[in-house]
Amino acid sequence: MPKIPHRLYLTEDQMPKQWYNLRADMKEQPDAMLNPQTGKPVTEQELYPIFCEELARQELDATNRYIDIPEEILEEYMIYRPSPLIRAYNLEKALDTPAKIYYKFEGNNTSGSHKLNSAIAQAYYAKKQGIKRLTTETGAGQWGTALAEACAYFGLELDVFQVKCSYEQKPFRRAIMEVFDATVTPSPSITTEAGRKILAENPNTTGSLGCAISEAVEKAVTTESCRYVLGSVLNQVLLHQSIIGIESKTAMEILGEYPDVVIGCAGGGSNLGGLIAPFMQDKLTGKANPRILAVEPASCPSLTRGRYAYDFCDTGKVTPMARMYTLGADFIPAANHAGGLRYHGMSPIVSKLYHDGYIDATAVQQTDVFDAAVYFAKKETILPAPESAHAIRAAIDEAIKCRESGESKTILFGLTGTGYFDMTAYSSYRAKTMENYIPTDEELEKGFASLPKIPGIQE
Amino acid sequence: MPKIPHRLYLTEDQMPKQWYNLRADMKEQPDAMLNPQTGKPVTEQELYPIFCEELARQELDATNRYIDIPEEILEEYMIYRPSPLIRAYNLEKALDTPAKIYYKFEGNNTSGSHKLNSAIAQAYYAKKQGIKRLTTETGAGQWGTALAEACAYFGLELDVFQVKCSYEQKPFRRAIMEVFDATVTPSPSITTEAGRKILAENPNTTGSLGCAISEAVEKAVTTESCRYVLGSVLNQVLLHQSIIGIESKTAMEILGEYPDVVIGCAGGGSNLGGLIAPFMQDKLTGKANPRILAVEPASCPSLTRGRYAYDFCDTGKVTPMARMYTLGADFIPAANHAGGLRYHGMSPIVSKLYHDGYIDATAVQQTDVFDAAVYFAKKETILPAPESAHAIRAAIDEAIKCRESGESKTILFGLTGTGYFDMTAYSSYRAKTMENYIPTDEELEKGFASLPKIPGIQE
Repeated sequence: MPKIPHRLYLTEDQMPKQWYNLRADMKEQPDAMLNPQTGKPVTEQELYPIFCEELARQELDATNRYIDIPEEILEEYMIYRPSPLIRAYNLEKALDTPAKIYYKFEGNNTSGSHKLNSAIAQAYYAKKQGIKRLTTETGAGQWGTALAEACAYFGLELDVFQVKCSYEQKPFRRAIMEVFDATVTPSPSITTEAGRKILAENPNTTGSLGCAISEAVEKAVTTESCRYVLGSVLNQVLLHQSIIGIESKTAMEILGEYPDVVIGCAGGGSNLGGLIAPFMQDKLTGKANPRILAVEPASCPSLTRGRYAYDFCDTGKVTPMARMYTLGADFIPAANHAGGLRYHGMSPIVSKLYHDGYIDATAVQQTDVFDAAVYFAKKETILPAPESAHAIRAAIDEAIKCRESGESKTILFGLTGTGYFDMTAYSSYRAKTMENYIPTDEELEKGFASLPKIPGIQE
Repeated sequence: MPKIPHRLYLTEDQMPKQWYNLRADMKEQPDAMLNPQTGKPVTEQELYPIFCEELARQELDATNRYIDIPEEILEEYMIYRPSPLIRAYNLEKALDTPAKIYYKFEGNNTSGSHKLNSAIAQAYYAKKQGIKRLTTETGAGQWGTALAEACAYFGLELDVFQVKCSYEQKPFRRAIMEVFDATVTPSPSITTEAGRKILAENPNTTGSLGCAISEAVEKAVTTESCRYVLGSVLNQVLLHQSIIGIESKTAMEILGEYPDVVIGCAGGGSNLGGLIAPFMQDKLTGKANPRILAVEPASCPSLTRGRYAYDFCDTGKVTPMARMYTLGADFIPAANHAGGLRYHGMSPIVSKLYHDGYIDATAVQQTDVFDAAVYFAKKETILPAPESAHAIRAAIDEAIKCRESGESKTILFGLTGTGYFDMTAYSSYRAKTMENYIPTDEELEKGFASLPKIPGIQE
């Protein structure tokens, strides 16, 4: 029996009672979010029509380092948390590597991913303010499922705008949201002005997260007692997701371990930002210097090939503008891109840390990702979500490097979720009909051309 | 914060290192399995062409009370075990019941159910004997998935005969088995004599577990270095599944709890037999007297309406005969029956204990089951498998009775798995197109007419 257990679950006493707000330790802050009407930093009050008040406050809070998790949220977290920190003994053995590989597995809940961590928090604050209804978008469907669960739990109504290609390819994702009483609409739809406009310009569009966000925001601001919530990108989401990193770090401390490298997949940055939070704190405060690696799809390479610029969070250009690594709000990944990680931008916090050199990034091809996913599944008996498999790919590559160099690095990666609703992609991989896609420079330029011009700030 | 945690995970030290063999404490043994050629009790050697040697031994072992779990199996168990014992605080609150409800959740692994516990054991023993290939049947698909995972882990080839209606309705179940390199064939198929015979008699059959077993057994005995494995019914399977009950009892002891009633869904009896094992030991040895409740579908009511008789385990009548509660090997549940729990018979151990009055049984309608499933999902944020929801239904009914009587009973039920691959059934339930079905007495008589005649034993 190995000394370090295969799985470590914290006890309820050991579970975090506070979220960690990474911004409090960033000497250089991400640039302020701008109000597109005024071109000036958005105020908390200006966010109230979109977000409920406590979440608007969290969104702009750069000073409070630790935020108490309300008792009601802790209660709900304890229904599915803590998630295990797993030592990948089998994977290590199969790779014949001296590296020690740990992963934090967030897929052990019905939403199938880490998304529930923020969904519960956002639904709770809405409920507390007396809001009756929420709207959101979903791409791969994990966020929509998580929010549907949270809304069912807190008794809120929910409208989900599901990216059309996902709505059509993943009927079971829709079905599971409907089990939790969510109303699911394929986006773009004719139910909103933003949707009608996008459809008029491009009737055959298969949709994008950016489109769906426009529709969800419009629906929220035009519906009584309704607010919009988002599953990634935002500062508040990274705050809630810090529970992933805090639990991981606590568990590693119990085992007497500390990672040399922390690896997370990166779409909008929710998992990556949450997983790395306490390790980045060590880095920012000089306590330790782990390497932090973001892994993104080559078909949607916001960090590795995007611009660090102000951009809208949505295609309809109704949201505030954030400075982030972006491919332009008009960018839509190629149709053969499977799974999530298809957002045009990246969390402003992650973007700033990347820009300042605290984070490395790499882009991987999807067949390489599925190679890693299937290899991992056979060794560790968990079928990963395609998104999570980006991190697996990088972790395996790192472990192979260790085999070659003889280094015994400690690797920690985030296994964000399970792939039960991604069997179409797995089947296409097995049938060898899955294709890779790297956007050309010209295609990227087309996306960049949609970046907003802001007098005096971004010409 | 409540004193009893929401979830209790045993540590690796606390995990069972032995299975418990219930037969060792049964004063009256289940009747011997008969060789259909001789009409005499089957010998260990006669089972060798079907099962590998160690499993044949376990199948007939009525004396060894505790069986050491080999180190290699423990290693693999630790990749996904222990499963949590969960206190259903939210469900209790929603039901406004003084009852304490606990459930053992076996769905936190990629097979989505408890089936992996026996799949790993059976694959291990086959591998150890030098067997290269296994065959099996699968209905709802959880067993096939579990065995595919186990075979991928131990490097064995696998042929799965998937009941045709499941193969057609659940393409993603097939896909996940294929990810783990299993070869999946819809049953009945033209690849076996048994399949061809069944198809000749009934070309439009949607298949049954009994048919698929015939095909899998035939393939095993006619293929080099190949053995057959079964996911339920058999004594060896209940032995392996005893880990569910042992973990549950250990966890409850840590919490200072003991169940007044233990509830399990019952198809072939794998989960029920495993969950109840150590509690039944207490009952058999006079240490305690918990009520044990088996819950079966009204559309496939082997315990509540079946005959306690010798029957074949398969439709093709090639297997040994077991004395069990059975609807006759020719019985096929109505096409509108969703999910698993569709086997014509019941574990001989469970059957004997039921026959002798140690187990109560109840049959429930499927819309009542899905009512419970959706209610549970909204409160406990786990989407249950339809099979598992049978136990939820009974647990909820028991808790409601406690509300009415004011009794504070301690209820333990088995949540065997998750329903991610059952969204078609959930959608049909939501659309109110799901129907109930209770076989008529005439239909049951038709099944009983297929019971074998055994001179001197069963005329």
